[in-house]
Amino acid sequence: MARRKQIYEGKAKILFEGPEPGTLIQYFKDDATAFNNQKRAVLEGKGVLNNRISEFIMLGLERIGVPTHFIRRLNMREQLIRHVEIIPLEVVVRNVAAGSIAKRLGLEEGSALPRSVIEFYYKNDALGDPMVAEEHITAFNWASPQEIDDMMALALRINDFLAGLFAGVGIRLVDFKVEFGRQYEGDMVRLVVADEISPDSCRLWDMESGDIMDKDRFRKDLGGVTEAYREVARRLGVLRDVEGQGARGPVLVTDNEK
Amino acid sequence: MARRKQIYEGKAKILFEGPEPGTLIQYFKDDATAFNNQKRAVLEGKGVLNNRISEFIMLGLERIGVPTHFIRRLNMREQLIRHVEIIPLEVVVRNVAAGSIAKRLGLEEGSALPRSVIEFYYKNDALGDPMVAEEHITAFNWASPQEIDDMMALALRINDFLAGLFAGVGIRLVDFKVEFGRQYEGDMVRLVVADEISPDSCRLWDMESGDIMDKDRFRKDLGGVTEAYREVARRLGVLRDVEGQGARGPVLVTDNEK
Repeated sequence: MARRKQIYEGKAKILFEGPEPGTLIQYFKDDATAFNNQKRAVLEGKGVLNNRISEFIMLGLERIGVPTHFIRRLNMREQLIRHVEIIPLEVVVRNVAAGSIAKRLGLEEGSALPRSVIEFYYKNDALGDPMVAEEHITAFNWASPQEIDDMMALALRINDFLAGLFAGVGIRLVDFKVEFGRQYEGDMVRLVVADEISPDSCRLWDMESGDIMDKDRFRKDLGGVTEAYREVARRLGVLRDVEGQGARGPVLVTDNEK
Repeated sequence: MARRKQIYEGKAKILFEGPEPGTLIQYFKDDATAFNNQKRAVLEGKGVLNNRISEFIMLGLERIGVPTHFIRRLNMREQLIRHVEIIPLEVVVRNVAAGSIAKRLGLEEGSALPRSVIEFYYKNDALGDPMVAEEHITAFNWASPQEIDDMMALALRINDFLAGLFAGVGIRLVDFKVEFGRQYEGDMVRLVVADEISPDSCRLWDMESGDIMDKDRFRKDLGGVTEAYREVARRLGVLRDVEGQGARGPVLVTDNEK
């Protein structure tokens, strides 16, 4: 593999310079972190699965007209993406009380929220990604009021799409996190979905058993993290070309493809 | 004193049934609490001072057309107020970084904010009054979008008024907290400022020395809490009729008047 210029290393991904200007290569690591980096592990195969799952979801979003940074998957662990200016916010959409909102507002885990609720968190590890309100976002110029409106509208569309996608394979979408970036084209700027959408960034519960199929397995020490991600991938049918199998066949993920 | 029906006892005030329907008597205690009730003390004379200071500010707000629950002061520790339906939110306006926003967003204490920032906290002791966003407020129906807009507009007017009021007596208004209630009149509802506005609910710094003149003296164990409140009252001239003194004369507060 030729040496490439590394642009940024995050907790679960590395960004390299892309082959053309305005592009990057997004590499999915197997590293898992939680509780603001206090808990860490390497979960073999996670990066491979998230690369596949996120590709599948980004392509689905593009298809319904939600723009993303995704261009194409390059190999088992890498995607070619557009180089965008990341807005320093995590946009969370919640349908069911779980995690921090349950604690913050004293809600029972698993209780339905009165309606889908959008939250913003300021992306800053040193501060522990604090929740912020629109007032903070506009006062500190992290995003404009118009961009907030656009992110909220896009986040709700993504919520609808993901809720449907997962409902179709017996999975309840509890909540998810999405990030946005600004894509500059001449004198135009448009907001696009960036980062990844995967079991690292969603809460996904099996509709029948209630089993957790996302990163909470890691946070809560439930074990079987990669197995759960693989089951999500399997149900979505994204491993078929890897395995030469139908959606109900056995599942095997290796790095051989790379 | 005739026995009265107690409606509610809070950390710093007691509400009694008022003489006419739709009224309450608000009694100012000397109790001070901080850090969600974990730190407590009795600060002799604080209630008397806050009753006076809050009266002065509420009357000033009424004069510029910001409606409040205040009807009239009854005695040294009591006010007659309108019985309103309290919106379960603390509305905080910040001009300078201090307290929780400094910690949450990693700002230096005392640094000016890019603009005045409004924050909402859900009034719930058991949850530690968590910060919430408009999304939570409307999802859980604590206030309507129109009420949020109205509270924000009123909060900014109060900020302008208080900034001017305190600037006039050499005090920098760092931030303050205000509460609102719904006053029902026939088929009309209007939002009015409720609770109190006093050094218990403001951050006030002496413009020249930078000395803290508010409840942070108690939170930070700086001592001289009542003395600082008395100095605020003295500068505002609200003790003149008690003491028969000009604004610059010696200050004496007792419960004799009651």
